[in-house]
Amino acid sequence: MIGRLNHVAIAVPDLEAAVAQYRNGLGAKVTEATDQPDHGVTVVFIELPNTKIELLYPLGENSPIRNFLEKNPSGGIHHICYEVDDILAARDKLKAEGARVLGDGEPKIGAHNKPVLFLHPKDFFGTLIELEQC
Amino acid sequence: MIGRLNHVAIAVPDLEAAVAQYRNGLGAKVTEATDQPDHGVTVVFIELPNTKIELLYPLGENSPIRNFLEKNPSGGIHHICYEVDDILAARDKLKAEGARVLGDGEPKIGAHNKPVLFLHPKDFFGTLIELEQC
Repeated sequence: MIGRLNHVAIAVPDLEAAVAQYRNGLGAKVTEATDQPDHGVTVVFIELPNTKIELLYPLGENSPIRNFLEKNPSGGIHHICYEVDDILAARDKLKAEGARVLGDGEPKIGAHNKPVLFLHPKDFFGTLIELEQC
Repeated sequence: MIGRLNHVAIAVPDLEAAVAQYRNGLGAKVTEATDQPDHGVTVVFIELPNTKIELLYPLGENSPIRNFLEKNPSGGIHHICYEVDDILAARDKLKAEGARVLGDGEPKIGAHNKPVLFLHPKDFFGTLIELEQC
């Protein structure tokens, strides 16, 4: 069912410092920062040959990563995203296996303008998983 | 400098349950468990089209992930691994930029029989980074 690893998302408390470390220290290809007000984050992509890293920085008062950074003030890996062909079929299969889907269980349009769902980290050994229909 | 994302490593407190969830819930291709006594872990690979996930379970009293699981009893993402062409050049560049290399700074032979180094998570926004020469 799951396909490619679409991205690893890392929440950071200082976006400029993180960009500098990835660009200068790790020599990675880093995009310009993009505000995504609908998702409450400013995002920078680290483009790797086979996948990407998303550096997330909170945007606005209701940013979904604000709580995470309060609990993890240095930052940390926030979630990983797997691609699926059919997000409704994936959801139904997961629910049948007893996994919990966050929110109301209906896919939302994610940061890449594709339908996404998040799975409860307690059902996946402490890992917040995003599924994205690609 | 950094190339492909080689893997994402997730420490889990119950390897059988994690394998079942990845195989049955997420429909992923999961390998047989392999003991790696030199590294203090039992490993299962989740093979994705573009990279892999490594599920890590402690093996032996001195397992390097035992402390992590004490702090994160549900499990969690332990580290991510980037490939580099030349690990000594990568190390020297990172040290010149002020990043700390764990241990004595000399590459060790990692779980894939290739030279690896780990970078201090405090210098990478809470993310433990492994570099593997490929």
